[in-house]
Amino acid sequence: MDFLIQRDELLRALSRVQGVVEKRSTNPILSAVLLQAHEGGLRVTATDKAMTFIGNFAANVNIPGEVAVDAANVFAVAKVLAADVVSVSLGDNQRVDLRCGKSYYKLAGQAAAEFQPTPAFEASGSLSIEASDLRNIIDQTWFSIAPDDNRYGLNGAHLDTVETPQGRMLRMVGTDGNRLSWAQGPFTGTLSIGRRMLLPRKPLAEVRKMIDGLSGPVGIDFGERAVVIRFEGVTVHMRLLEAEFPNYKEVLPTNFKRRVVVDRDVFMEGLRRVSIFATDGSHSVRFAFTTDGLVLTARKLDAGDAREEVAIDFSGDPITMGFNARFIQDVLAALKSTRVTLELGDTLSPCILKPMDEDNALFVVMPVRLD
Amino acid sequence: MDFLIQRDELLRALSRVQGVVEKRSTNPILSAVLLQAHEGGLRVTATDKAMTFIGNFAANVNIPGEVAVDAANVFAVAKVLAADVVSVSLGDNQRVDLRCGKSYYKLAGQAAAEFQPTPAFEASGSLSIEASDLRNIIDQTWFSIAPDDNRYGLNGAHLDTVETPQGRMLRMVGTDGNRLSWAQGPFTGTLSIGRRMLLPRKPLAEVRKMIDGLSGPVGIDFGERAVVIRFEGVTVHMRLLEAEFPNYKEVLPTNFKRRVVVDRDVFMEGLRRVSIFATDGSHSVRFAFTTDGLVLTARKLDAGDAREEVAIDFSGDPITMGFNARFIQDVLAALKSTRVTLELGDTLSPCILKPMDEDNALFVVMPVRLD
Repeated sequence: MDFLIQRDELLRALSRVQGVVEKRSTNPILSAVLLQAHEGGLRVTATDKAMTFIGNFAANVNIPGEVAVDAANVFAVAKVLAADVVSVSLGDNQRVDLRCGKSYYKLAGQAAAEFQPTPAFEASGSLSIEASDLRNIIDQTWFSIAPDDNRYGLNGAHLDTVETPQGRMLRMVGTDGNRLSWAQGPFTGTLSIGRRMLLPRKPLAEVRKMIDGLSGPVGIDFGERAVVIRFEGVTVHMRLLEAEFPNYKEVLPTNFKRRVVVDRDVFMEGLRRVSIFATDGSHSVRFAFTTDGLVLTARKLDAGDAREEVAIDFSGDPITMGFNARFIQDVLAALKSTRVTLELGDTLSPCILKPMDEDNALFVVMPVRLD
Repeated sequence: MDFLIQRDELLRALSRVQGVVEKRSTNPILSAVLLQAHEGGLRVTATDKAMTFIGNFAANVNIPGEVAVDAANVFAVAKVLAADVVSVSLGDNQRVDLRCGKSYYKLAGQAAAEFQPTPAFEASGSLSIEASDLRNIIDQTWFSIAPDDNRYGLNGAHLDTVETPQGRMLRMVGTDGNRLSWAQGPFTGTLSIGRRMLLPRKPLAEVRKMIDGLSGPVGIDFGERAVVIRFEGVTVHMRLLEAEFPNYKEVLPTNFKRRVVVDRDVFMEGLRRVSIFATDGSHSVRFAFTTDGLVLTARKLDAGDAREEVAIDFSGDPITMGFNARFIQDVLAALKSTRVTLELGDTLSPCILKPMDEDNALFVVMPVRLD
């Protein structure tokens, strides 16, 4: 193996795999990235139990070949190299040599045969979505997905299609039991995911990072218990979680008694100020809605009290409710519109937040009981 | 107590004391800052065992008064307030009320009488030094001071005066036994510090932060077992450490066999590249000096080998030595000149580093034994 590659291209390839490989594994091959130099360039593969990343990068290959090398180690080297051409070659005993300017690094490699084979995959359906639309729907749902494995059935994103006046949309839904988000965007092709199949949380976050700034279409192929996501020379194989996602449409309130319209930035700023004294753990803040405005108050033991006023348009009877401030902040941070509507029922009924003048996202936050 | 203060002035006052107060103390008064509103403005006092900070800030005082309040808490509030005028007043039970725009905070305060009294101080001598010169001598010595208390006699900075062709200079010296730095600058007045007295490391770092960007003179008053540092409405009282500083002039080599001149940035860059594979713990890197140049090599177990070439002017017989890469990097980062000279003896003799064409700083680094 012997190839030349621009430092920035090498850095791009290796930065992509850092979030994929297993850190601090007892088996070194699980922390390794597979480098395969072929006539067309450099192929880079990294994997953990939940996902496999395969990326193709521009390189000038003199001698094709392959080797596995510790991903963190070779990334550390790439980061300090000068912005110049890097020569990468294979020495004795799977040793990987990197040369750039006056720098010369030798890294311990492992035989490519040790590397886990890429899982077999057969597509039963396929769709295409613009990268910007995919970013949009991930950004507006991801934070609501239950973070750990003990919320069986909630620790992944659900996919669905819906008919809208603007055509058929791909909808992503996430929930942790205390909040729920959905967001949707246009697509072409066929959604063909099993009814009890969820996209896992961490690999979804990795894909989100990879498509940052990307324009153009992203392909999603559906197979049995797996999806493959494709964009710009990259293929990501993702194992699906098997779990029954709740019937989320049933839990959405269909009517409301009170309606609030508020400026997103003003609301965020007020929440940020008051929540420095939100209760530890529950992040509980008191929301008093009246036609005069919204008064936010918080009290933290041994710290103090905070009070903030936010101008709102309010219709309905005055009401005081408690919310986890972070849940509302997550929604406001994800929303793209400058005005937000809140639909409220009674003190302990779910609150629906929506971007104003837009129907492609919806957020539900359960209130908390006030002392 | 009732006063108005600009948010930025309040923030400046409170940010100054964050590094001074004790964090997570079982006694809340040790984490508190004392606010004293008087006709001339706001006085802010914070203290720990080693130092006391007193600062005067611009405020429009309606009712003079004083109260102690948790420093971290009130700082958290000041940080989120709008950039506007803040009203600060005292309520019942030492409660501190802060109002700004639509924000209203109530903080639990403590009686000012609970606050530790500022230590008595009587000056036996006094000097004045430009803030930029003081920054210079602290920056070039601080990193060499032994970091913990178990290096008795080395965990503080020594002060001395020296006669030079440019006049009398104030010299600061720091060492941890493996390296030593001194730097000096012009001053007026009298150095009057006890022979066995050292400036403590952490308070010195706090003062360095406080004088960042400051222009104009800094006054240093010497008392018994204490110094007081004064600048722009601020007074810092610092308890001195009692310890015998080593006779550092004796350990400085007076002659050398080899001389190296090297470009600072090129040297730094080469060291940065090779030291990613420096041995854990010792940060050991091999330096091979010849008339052809300097070859840096490092080997980290289970990671790999790094090799780097650095262009140097070299006179003397070739030599290979080991150094803790971080020690050399600290010196290069502190140095202000673009060219550096190294004076070398034998493999295990101390190395002297100096800024080229400048006599106001000197650095000694002990080599490490190579395997």
